Amino acid sequence: MSTFILRSGVLILSFGIASEIVYQIYKKVKSRNNGNRRKFPKTEVLFFPDETVACKAYFTDDYGCKNSNCRFSHEENSLSKLFTYLISARISIDVCVFVITCSDLADLLVKSHKKGVVVRVVTDNEQVDVPGSQIWKLRKAGIPVRIDNSSFFMHHKFAIIDQEHLINGSFNWTQKAITGNQENILITNNEDIVLPFISEFEKLWLKFDPNQN
Amino acid sequence: MSTFILRSGVLILSFGIASEIVYQIYKKVKSRNNGNRRKFPKTEVLFFPDETVACKAYFTDDYGCKNSNCRFSHEENSLSKLFTYLISARISIDVCVFVITCSDLADLLVKSHKKGVVVRVVTDNEQVDVPGSQIWKLRKAGIPVRIDNSSFFMHHKFAIIDQEHLINGSFNWTQKAITGNQENILITNNEDIVLPFISEFEKLWLKFDPNQN
Repeated sequence: MSTFILRSGVLILSFGIASEIVYQIYKKVKSRNNGNRRKFPKTEVLFFPDETVACKAYFTDDYGCKNSNCRFSHEENSLSKLFTYLISARISIDVCVFVITCSDLADLLVKSHKKGVVVRVVTDNEQVDVPGSQIWKLRKAGIPVRIDNSSFFMHHKFAIIDQEHLINGSFNWTQKAITGNQENILITNNEDIVLPFISEFEKLWLKFDPNQN
Repeated sequence: MSTFILRSGVLILSFGIASEIVYQIYKKVKSRNNGNRRKFPKTEVLFFPDETVACKAYFTDDYGCKNSNCRFSHEENSLSKLFTYLISARISIDVCVFVITCSDLADLLVKSHKKGVVVRVVTDNEQVDVPGSQIWKLRKAGIPVRIDNSSFFMHHKFAIIDQEHLINGSFNWTQKAITGNQENILITNNEDIVLPFISEFEKLWLKFDPNQN
């Protein structure tokens, strides 16, 4: 009988410890991953340059940043907010951006694609082969990329998240745009603004279909 | 007495003819100058390229286009709408644009400046001396222009009309952006969007004050 009580006690104690561990992990993930869960306003305007570079892991990974000597910023800034919009996608991300050389932003597209989010990219031929271009990484990951091969620029810099949020402005997806240039991004779910951009994306997606040209 | 009646008749007839002439001119100006008087929606999204180049005179001059063989378009398009926003300014136009080489748009700034509208321009040093740059024309007309002389880009492409309407997007003020490139402009009077841009303009206006640097 005393053995039974002892075993029951150990079982209850183990269960209690296990529960506490799970709860602590939950708390840690929750506090570390605030960005991912922040409530989006209807309209948000972001300006660059940021003074520091936001830590992608801290703001977008489920377990946050594991690097105790991380040299990137864990404070919210314009880039971290952009990260959280991109990582919030559950259905689709349509990207229509002139230059994509920022590996952190390209990595988020690949991550979303691997989770099953439908990612499509439209860009310009003049920028596909510039140093640091992320187009080949995107294609290697299986993300379809369509290219404007005309002599004019596909100069847009917008993305649409879940056909709901528009991200648009002067901001190309480059490192220089994050910490150097004067840039802006408007993010909104105002349908009067988002819907015309959804149509524009579909128009260009067809226009730059290599099978149509 | 009959001379008096005759003179009165001629006077009344002359007055009638003069009235008719004035009325016809008024009708002509009104119909030609529809653009200038169109009612602006709260939010408008414009895409480029336009298929034709809008006639600046038709959409912005009080007497419209006087050229019977005009080779420019008298049909409303994205550029004509941009013209009508710019020419609607009564108090101020703050321009913060990376490249300004389009003479039609620069001419509208000069025209507004001459009417007494306070025009201010912020731009980037890398673009000041490119072929077709309109910066010197603006300065010659007395419009103050402040320049980002850093190695990074002042890459914004926005303008604020009467502190009320924001014009913003991927669109630099170039001819190529009008009839060649894929571009967008969002125009809105939504305060949640306009006010941050007003602050950004004032910040950059001070930052690039040559007396402060």
